[in-house]
Amino acid sequence: MKPTIGVLGGTGHEGKGLALRFAHAGYPIVIGSRDPERARTTAAEIAGRIEGASVAGASNLAAAERATICVLTVPYAAHRATLETVRQALSGKVLIDVTVPLLPPKVTRVQLPPEGSAAVAAQAMLGADVKVVSAFQNVSAHYLETVEGFVDCDVLVCGDDKDARELVVALAHAAGMRGIHGGVLANAAAAEALTSVLIFLNARYKVKGAGIRFTGIPDDPAAR
Amino acid sequence: MKPTIGVLGGTGHEGKGLALRFAHAGYPIVIGSRDPERARTTAAEIAGRIEGASVAGASNLAAAERATICVLTVPYAAHRATLETVRQALSGKVLIDVTVPLLPPKVTRVQLPPEGSAAVAAQAMLGADVKVVSAFQNVSAHYLETVEGFVDCDVLVCGDDKDARELVVALAHAAGMRGIHGGVLANAAAAEALTSVLIFLNARYKVKGAGIRFTGIPDDPAAR
Repeated sequence: MKPTIGVLGGTGHEGKGLALRFAHAGYPIVIGSRDPERARTTAAEIAGRIEGASVAGASNLAAAERATICVLTVPYAAHRATLETVRQALSGKVLIDVTVPLLPPKVTRVQLPPEGSAAVAAQAMLGADVKVVSAFQNVSAHYLETVEGFVDCDVLVCGDDKDARELVVALAHAAGMRGIHGGVLANAAAAEALTSVLIFLNARYKVKGAGIRFTGIPDDPAAR
Repeated sequence: MKPTIGVLGGTGHEGKGLALRFAHAGYPIVIGSRDPERARTTAAEIAGRIEGASVAGASNLAAAERATICVLTVPYAAHRATLETVRQALSGKVLIDVTVPLLPPKVTRVQLPPEGSAAVAAQAMLGADVKVVSAFQNVSAHYLETVEGFVDCDVLVCGDDKDARELVVALAHAAGMRGIHGGVLANAAAAEALTSVLIFLNARYKVKGAGIRFTGIPDDPAAR
């Protein structure tokens, strides 16, 4: 039996797309939202698209309680408040932080927080008892609308706990993406900063899903 | 006649490699160094490899004075002091900052300065009269040992002055690399942070020249 994944803020485009991919890979999913009713609607939609999938909807706190791996996909403005809401339920678990510190209206400008990155700020808030890993910030939600479409973007995975990092690299792989070991959690700054650059590239080059690939490394390190 | 490029700190691997490529593309080059004698040795070496090239060596200040475009390729520890030395000569010119804020021994950990990036710190030091553009931080010197070898890495070009950015994108192209418009100078944080990640990837995956490519954008935006 695969571990249950809680997708906090899972009614947004990115969260929903990741939930769809994880459900397709056979993981039981609990969609979390401030509004449990919306979470249940999103859950039903995903369940309707994947035969045999286990997908439930709940409040963010209930989703975090029921899951053993949590994925945080909320807008930056809700980052701190959501973490406060769920922190007691995260103890001993892995939190995959997908948050990008975008400060509208200047979303094409890198504006990292004083802590260096949103992921490092999350780790500081949650304490050493939660294993924070950052990942998936660069993958356009546009790629996640289908379960099997090719994702032309690597997933940089950063975290201070190596086992937790391995788990997330494997999870990216299960969801049809190439996970890359990116080193310590402080390196989340690179992925978070890149997202503002990718939003700029989408505008500058008039495209929808600018992404990144790491070159010069073996073709499928995720399989190692 | 092409503008003269001054490569400050041009006796190091990265500076020498860029100088070689720019000289090959037909730009007159002045190699700058704290030690003019070493600069002249490097200049002679490059001149010996490229027929008809104009390559001189000088102090950093003299190189900056003689050039109309300057490229800064010094170790981070020498960043501020070198800028102080040459600032009076940079007035009205374009400075391409290649500096990465690496703090040994933890060079695989992203450690951006309080200003957000070395390039933004340089701009703050130099004032609005100098057009600072950041570029080339992610290109392994290993790729620049030859003039025509394929560089499997994009060059993210960030700067607040659009014309200066265009110039550097074109310069990357002339040197056999794909320059990508990366937006405002603050976005240099992404490229600077990535270099620490690339150094981590070189160690983690046992390779020499990990790099990045941007995906989902037209094949040759530099030519637009």
